[in-house]
Amino acid sequence: MNLKLLAAAALLACASLAAETFSESDLETARELRAAALAGDGGFEIVADLTTLIGPRMAGSDGEKRAVEWAQKMLRDQGFDRVWTEPATFPVWRRYGQSAKVVSPASQPLTALALGFSPSTPEGGIESEVVMLDDLEALENVSEDEVAGRIIFVRNRMERTRSGAGYGQAVGVRSGGARIAAAKGAAALVIRSIGTSDNRFAHAGMQRHEKDVDMVPALAISNPDADLLERLMAGDEAVRMQVEVDAETIDAHTSYNVIGEITGAGRPEEIVALGAHLDSWDVGTGALDDGAGVAIVTEAARLIAGLEQRPERSIHVILFAAEETGLWGGHAWARAHADDIENYQLVAESDFGDGKVYAIGARVSDEAWPVIQAIQQELAPLGIELGARRASGGPDFSPALPLGVAAVDLHQDGTRYFDYHHTENDTLDKVDAESLAQNAAAYAVLAWLGAQSPVSFGSGKTILQQEKGD
Amino acid sequence: MNLKLLAAAALLACASLAAETFSESDLETARELRAAALAGDGGFEIVADLTTLIGPRMAGSDGEKRAVEWAQKMLRDQGFDRVWTEPATFPVWRRYGQSAKVVSPASQPLTALALGFSPSTPEGGIESEVVMLDDLEALENVSEDEVAGRIIFVRNRMERTRSGAGYGQAVGVRSGGARIAAAKGAAALVIRSIGTSDNRFAHAGMQRHEKDVDMVPALAISNPDADLLERLMAGDEAVRMQVEVDAETIDAHTSYNVIGEITGAGRPEEIVALGAHLDSWDVGTGALDDGAGVAIVTEAARLIAGLEQRPERSIHVILFAAEETGLWGGHAWARAHADDIENYQLVAESDFGDGKVYAIGARVSDEAWPVIQAIQQELAPLGIELGARRASGGPDFSPALPLGVAAVDLHQDGTRYFDYHHTENDTLDKVDAESLAQNAAAYAVLAWLGAQSPVSFGSGKTILQQEKGD
Repeated sequence: MNLKLLAAAALLACASLAAETFSESDLETARELRAAALAGDGGFEIVADLTTLIGPRMAGSDGEKRAVEWAQKMLRDQGFDRVWTEPATFPVWRRYGQSAKVVSPASQPLTALALGFSPSTPEGGIESEVVMLDDLEALENVSEDEVAGRIIFVRNRMERTRSGAGYGQAVGVRSGGARIAAAKGAAALVIRSIGTSDNRFAHAGMQRHEKDVDMVPALAISNPDADLLERLMAGDEAVRMQVEVDAETIDAHTSYNVIGEITGAGRPEEIVALGAHLDSWDVGTGALDDGAGVAIVTEAARLIAGLEQRPERSIHVILFAAEETGLWGGHAWARAHADDIENYQLVAESDFGDGKVYAIGARVSDEAWPVIQAIQQELAPLGIELGARRASGGPDFSPALPLGVAAVDLHQDGTRYFDYHHTENDTLDKVDAESLAQNAAAYAVLAWLGAQSPVSFGSGKTILQQEKGD
Repeated sequence: MNLKLLAAAALLACASLAAETFSESDLETARELRAAALAGDGGFEIVADLTTLIGPRMAGSDGEKRAVEWAQKMLRDQGFDRVWTEPATFPVWRRYGQSAKVVSPASQPLTALALGFSPSTPEGGIESEVVMLDDLEALENVSEDEVAGRIIFVRNRMERTRSGAGYGQAVGVRSGGARIAAAKGAAALVIRSIGTSDNRFAHAGMQRHEKDVDMVPALAISNPDADLLERLMAGDEAVRMQVEVDAETIDAHTSYNVIGEITGAGRPEEIVALGAHLDSWDVGTGALDDGAGVAIVTEAARLIAGLEQRPERSIHVILFAAEETGLWGGHAWARAHADDIENYQLVAESDFGDGKVYAIGARVSDEAWPVIQAIQQELAPLGIELGARRASGGPDFSPALPLGVAAVDLHQDGTRYFDYHHTENDTLDKVDAESLAQNAAAYAVLAWLGAQSPVSFGSGKTILQQEKGD
């Protein structure tokens, strides 16, 4: 068989997979949804409204409270059949202010943000000599003598990648550095921002937080400021800094996941759940993180709600609370749905900005993998390839993975995402409507065909047993 | 004559112009300087030192004082024959803090900077309804009734251009808006930043300042925040803002222009003066504005100082004080040299960042214009075209124009310049060493051939009479 024939045969085999799995009518509807989403603005007006009328909505803040009200009204306005909330309780960290400056051998104010759950410094701040370390490993290995009483500066630099993998490689020092610094008697921790911006924005971010584990005050400085500090450290003179943090941690606060449902016509108790998170960091307006996700999944579901035909299964849009401060909404959802997790046929969260989707990965039963392949055929015109047979479902669904939930990842191009992530520069003007529309098209096809699939995706026992058997 | 012959003839005519004007040896030296500058880093280490060891150096600040010490030592280290200072006295504006936020119908903190010489608000700030106006003309025409007691927001937007002409078109409302707002009884003025950054940085900048003219407190907000405010203003509800400024104006402070000389071997009393300004805004480290200029003109002169042969005329590098707050160093220099202005054969300031030079313009006597054309022939390999027969010499030499000083403008590509201009994002990482080197090459050729020219450029009476005769 020559190559052309082989390709033609492969194409036929592929084409028949979708046709074997779904009715011609369901496939036609999927294509109509795809076209309608691409012709629209991807829900740009949703993220515009959220960022303009609400703005910053840090978990536990007044902004978040207003966002929960806004989201319920918005989902009703978009045509969902039912809208409700489910509670989530979490600790709250409040930023009142911070500063960082070099005091010697030069006087240089630095652009800095305290990291989440950083304790306050004493009033007037902490001034000390700076010790520069390469990365988390160097911090783990440095002797107490070298850092006791000092301000530790860790200079590790996040790499820009399409997948965003550079984030995971660099973020460890942000998550856990302050407890190591505390254990070694350091005075404070300053890190190069975990982000790729060349502009003078510090990237905020969470630290692992346990009540009984000591942490030093910790701040991220912008990449240009980290360059400056590295240049000063390369000189002959000792470098001294002064840092100040004014912040507060409140033990328990209750907010809400906001859920909208398009009720299925055939098997309404079976659910395809699309997620995004409603909360944001406090310093931007949370346009890319995660206003974009809110817009994408809402727009996808809205297009399905607008069809004359109801989907077979129900479709949920879940707007999670308090993702940024520790996936608290996700944990609450997993706890609340541990007993009916097998009803959640497929879950997928959009939480990676507005970058275009380039691949679909899934964590489903063996019987359901061909359905994912069939769905990918309808995503292919959007430039979406078949990815791996694994998925997390996104951060807020990850607490449900141990319950065996079936999950899909629509992998987005994250090349630019970490230029804005967790900065005050995460604002509406960064959101590209065309790119949002491609995302909405992908989620609409996924949700529709997921809801129409005659095959179960295997949530619950099947996948749990499969995982255990690995 | 066919076109090829015409072109060849033109080329010959051109080639002979340089050869007729300058000795073969001087032209060879110009080419060596050009090559040496291109092979170097354009003085990148100078701007690195200035931004790292001094940083912000607002006129009248401790940083500026340290910069004056730094500059004298640096010029001596670079091999100048003589280094001295000349005083300049000016009013000082000190920024202690500011804030701007929307309080209704949403709660949105905005990224803002008070404009230079803004008065303070009462403690606790000013809260009022916002009136949005299109531009300076609309502000001039609006009735007192519409704006009395209100916060005026002017939304005019600077256009991006290579020449930077968009700045001049947009800046009027920044320079003079607050006095018009005061005359109409407004409470405060908020403007869209005069700058092209898509990032969330407010662009600082000066206002015209006279002791007896009232101004309202005035702030610039970042472009993304101006977008947000415009979007809120397009809604149905009245928009209210709260602004606060804490600042102080001090009547008189003395600082210094720092001058380095390469003493001429033949006609040392005749001078080619290259300028840049040493002061910066308070919010960045003044890397592009004007650390780049300091580096470019110093590097150009340093290369000439490193020659075995001294130039015929003297070459000065003048690092001006307090350009940003009103060209105070430039005014002091013009006053100090009013009586010997004819000795300043040619003046040219570099104050437009690191963009490549693309044209040379000059304001010289009729007899000297062919010399400029000959110099342009030696700049052509750098991609520099012949521009107009007019020049300002740059901001700090402009006060000497009425004295009839001969001036050159090396026009730089300003496409990116106003992305960083007067923001906290004007930092070293934005400076491109290759582009600096092209600038240094151009200034080295200009200064060398300007110093070797047997023709006078006509400073003083000739140009003054010519101007008067226009």
